[in-house]
Amino acid sequence: MRIVLIHSGGLDSTVLLYKLRAEGHEVRCLGVDYGQRHRRELDAGQAICRDVGVEYRVADLRGLRSLLAGSALTDSIPVPSGHYTDETMKATIVPNRNMIMLSVAIGWAVSLRYDAVAYAAHAGDHTIYPDCRPVFVEAVRSVARLCDWRPIELLAPFVGKSKADIVRIGAELGVPFERTWSCYRGGELHCGTCGTCVERREAFQKAGIADRTVYRGQ
Amino acid sequence: MRIVLIHSGGLDSTVLLYKLRAEGHEVRCLGVDYGQRHRRELDAGQAICRDVGVEYRVADLRGLRSLLAGSALTDSIPVPSGHYTDETMKATIVPNRNMIMLSVAIGWAVSLRYDAVAYAAHAGDHTIYPDCRPVFVEAVRSVARLCDWRPIELLAPFVGKSKADIVRIGAELGVPFERTWSCYRGGELHCGTCGTCVERREAFQKAGIADRTVYRGQ
Repeated sequence: MRIVLIHSGGLDSTVLLYKLRAEGHEVRCLGVDYGQRHRRELDAGQAICRDVGVEYRVADLRGLRSLLAGSALTDSIPVPSGHYTDETMKATIVPNRNMIMLSVAIGWAVSLRYDAVAYAAHAGDHTIYPDCRPVFVEAVRSVARLCDWRPIELLAPFVGKSKADIVRIGAELGVPFERTWSCYRGGELHCGTCGTCVERREAFQKAGIADRTVYRGQ
Repeated sequence: MRIVLIHSGGLDSTVLLYKLRAEGHEVRCLGVDYGQRHRRELDAGQAICRDVGVEYRVADLRGLRSLLAGSALTDSIPVPSGHYTDETMKATIVPNRNMIMLSVAIGWAVSLRYDAVAYAAHAGDHTIYPDCRPVFVEAVRSVARLCDWRPIELLAPFVGKSKADIVRIGAELGVPFERTWSCYRGGELHCGTCGTCVERREAFQKAGIADRTVYRGQ
């Protein structure tokens, strides 16, 4: 299959990149610039794709920033520390982010005459992000099959998996985890304390895989 | 209801604006700048919304232009003349345009805590645009109900109507048709010969409503 993969520069989408390539698919990656506080994750996406010889393009959605205000990922609201919980992490939601990213990725797949779009939504995201739920994936899948005369498939193979599962899969595939970027805060090193850093650390612990990420203050 | 209406500056979405307001809804309008050849339709949208005292915002998607190449609406491919037909008008398709626009409109509705998104897809578009079909609208409706914890409704009341029907509805509502812009070519006056101008002229004829549009060379 020929697949457009939404690639954030993070751990999950990098494992998915390695998995799709190991399965023999032709892959192009799409990063999304929605006016993040930092470009660290876009740089990581580019570097990871360069390593494996896969095209990496960025969809420039910065023009939507003022319209879709209200997220700590793009605005001046402080990034919350501590574990993912409904209260702290809801501040990091860009409204309808996944549908927007998926619709752009599908548009690119149509223009490339590719077969599918893939993204790395996973079970750990459900309780906080409505647009990572299996039922959401199913609904978008129906749209992707109808938006052009030639249906586009939607692949979300991690939707029933935990982040620890993804770490295990990545370890088997030889994913260079240290090249991936999760931290919401940016900077040279992962902060180790924001929700996504905490989730990353826990995933390695639960998977029983050594975490080579260097966290700030270690 | 509080509704985000996708407003192109054209005839269909302007009739829908008048209809929604006549029904007592609170409406804000969203134009989409995807790097059209001309800004004439965005200017028309702004002027029409100003007339009726409705907020008009533009989603800036020009950053997607290079990614989603291949359309005569944004690229250097000539705009085809003559009637809408599969062969000529397919060149005007921006890949997955409706899903992209709807996803951004839904994002804005979520951030405003609005109830619904409306758009003016209609029956005349079906044969050419896959993403104007009732089955596509149904599929997006499911996504809109799931993409946030608070469901967003999707309204597409013209999906079973012809453009002539829309002209009739607009005439009853006193829509200032001469303020709307349909032509794909831009300029001061409607060209009268591109697919969408031909369709506009025919709709007035079929509806038996005087067409006050001034076409070039008349």
